[in-house]
Amino acid sequence: MSTLPSALQAPPSAPDVLGRCRELVRPALAEAVGRLHPWVAEMAAYSFGWCEVGGAPAAAPGGKGVRQALAVLGAEAAGADGRAGVPAAVAVELVHAFSLLHDDIMDGDATRRRRPAVWKAYGTGPAVLAGDALFALAVETLAATPGGPRAVRLLSTALADLVRGQADDLLFAARPFAGPERVTPEEYRVMAEHKTGALLGCAAALGATLGGAPEPAVAALDRAGRHLGVAFQLVDDVLGIWGDPAVTGKPVGGDLRERKKTFPVLAALGSPAARHLPELLACDARTEEAAALIEEAGGRAAALAEARARTAAARALLTELPLAAGAAGELCALLDFLVGRDL
Amino acid sequence: MSTLPSALQAPPSAPDVLGRCRELVRPALAEAVGRLHPWVAEMAAYSFGWCEVGGAPAAAPGGKGVRQALAVLGAEAAGADGRAGVPAAVAVELVHAFSLLHDDIMDGDATRRRRPAVWKAYGTGPAVLAGDALFALAVETLAATPGGPRAVRLLSTALADLVRGQADDLLFAARPFAGPERVTPEEYRVMAEHKTGALLGCAAALGATLGGAPEPAVAALDRAGRHLGVAFQLVDDVLGIWGDPAVTGKPVGGDLRERKKTFPVLAALGSPAARHLPELLACDARTEEAAALIEEAGGRAAALAEARARTAAARALLTELPLAAGAAGELCALLDFLVGRDL
Repeated sequence: MSTLPSALQAPPSAPDVLGRCRELVRPALAEAVGRLHPWVAEMAAYSFGWCEVGGAPAAAPGGKGVRQALAVLGAEAAGADGRAGVPAAVAVELVHAFSLLHDDIMDGDATRRRRPAVWKAYGTGPAVLAGDALFALAVETLAATPGGPRAVRLLSTALADLVRGQADDLLFAARPFAGPERVTPEEYRVMAEHKTGALLGCAAALGATLGGAPEPAVAALDRAGRHLGVAFQLVDDVLGIWGDPAVTGKPVGGDLRERKKTFPVLAALGSPAARHLPELLACDARTEEAAALIEEAGGRAAALAEARARTAAARALLTELPLAAGAAGELCALLDFLVGRDL
Repeated sequence: MSTLPSALQAPPSAPDVLGRCRELVRPALAEAVGRLHPWVAEMAAYSFGWCEVGGAPAAAPGGKGVRQALAVLGAEAAGADGRAGVPAAVAVELVHAFSLLHDDIMDGDATRRRRPAVWKAYGTGPAVLAGDALFALAVETLAATPGGPRAVRLLSTALADLVRGQADDLLFAARPFAGPERVTPEEYRVMAEHKTGALLGCAAALGATLGGAPEPAVAALDRAGRHLGVAFQLVDDVLGIWGDPAVTGKPVGGDLRERKKTFPVLAALGSPAARHLPELLACDARTEEAAALIEEAGGRAAALAEARARTAAARALLTELPLAAGAAGELCALLDFLVGRDL
């Protein structure tokens, strides 16, 4: 009904963009999951929040659907209809679900989105199997898509990075907070780019590939998604220490009590001001002191500065590329939404 | 030194064929594994028998390398140099290693090739991760190969079948020996074709694809490999009940004591003669009686008959196809070796 030219209209809000893309992708995702072995399909549907254990329909919270949105917007940014990006969207959501299923086993996380994790609800063996099936289905989905070869290469690179990032993350847990073996902030950034950034970059790049984008645009979207992944992880790290529990759903200082080696902690440990930090971290009762010391030693500021730099780098890539204006605007809206507009 | 025309020479023995293919593939397989995260690469190398826990070199028994040999011979059967099949060989060996790592977790098998299984040696989480990494590496290897798209499609179909077969296998364990819910021999055949046959068929088909074979030959080799997989599984089932422990390395009647629903058992249960079999199977002390009753009720004969039929079907496909003579002979030698010449 508006008579404004579209370039002057405010871009849709990020939740609207996420909702639109979710609606667009859902039938194809459900169809793909429906091709799985029925038992495995139930585990997959449970993990997406579509059903309860036993198969009764449910509307439990799924993820935000960021990856599928990036894939759809990637196709639109290339000037194609968003539907061209749907196979990419399905593939990346399947890979994301696979990685959550297996990561929860590896990390011993019993809860996911306020429900029992799949391995808690169905058993470890079945959860391993369901993850494998989702992984295979993702590859199958892309391999069956015209224009698939380049797409499968992009996906396989992201998969390799994802696994590499998870390996580093697991190994970081076993390393000390102090001394020459400690994890450096740079190692952490690389891990986060692999574990979180690779699939976000892949999502946008895959969508753009299926939308017919030229190689430089595909590569730039991949890089933008990787920056977004690192920024998102660092903001999450800050929230995991200083976030409002009412908003994050996590206890205050939860990451510190779990002795997670997140970026603010690692950055602080590089400062002489934080030389007593390892002692504080070893003691459950001193979490608040630890948080204060991390902030004093510059850990919080370093994390936010890096997140800001990554967000700016992603935004610069998106604005410099010759992308379809609507999709570029929606990609930027998504970026603001995910890392916080007021960073 | 021989002056006989090559068609009149006896084909090389199956162990020679396996050894030749192993030598041909080993450098590329080692190179691929070397691209993994170092920690994951060690778990992979351990699973191949190349090293001990901690990374010290070892020469522990690996697998026979049937899948890599099928890939190399598939390329040669298409008239290409065996080296054309090497990326296919690497991919299928990686997938096989992935499936063993994860299956051992799901089945709770603590030992593999007389050594602790990877999950026992390194932990469940790391073994899940290592399997994922091998899976991703397999896809990456094929996606990077010229002629990859058709190859990736073949691999993704086999992966989906593999996971489906494993799902059925896990679910069979929970079903009863008697009554309407019992597992039928037909269901078992389908499971075996998926779990064991799909990757053997894929190996030969992938090799042939990379060797430039036309589509009908690729499809026929895929079918032949699937027949081989079912035949191999059924022979293994027979050995698991009546095999010589000195040869099989397994205890007499081990499969019965573990209450495995193998083909001879399921086939026997279809006969009125076996109506007391479920009682015998429930009792560890009555394994010998159970084995005798399964034989009496025709379970052993049915398994061997089906294995024979599948072997004949595979051999017919191999002899009817216009394949390079040397490779076709070696494929048949492999078939005889795997399912037993005197079946």
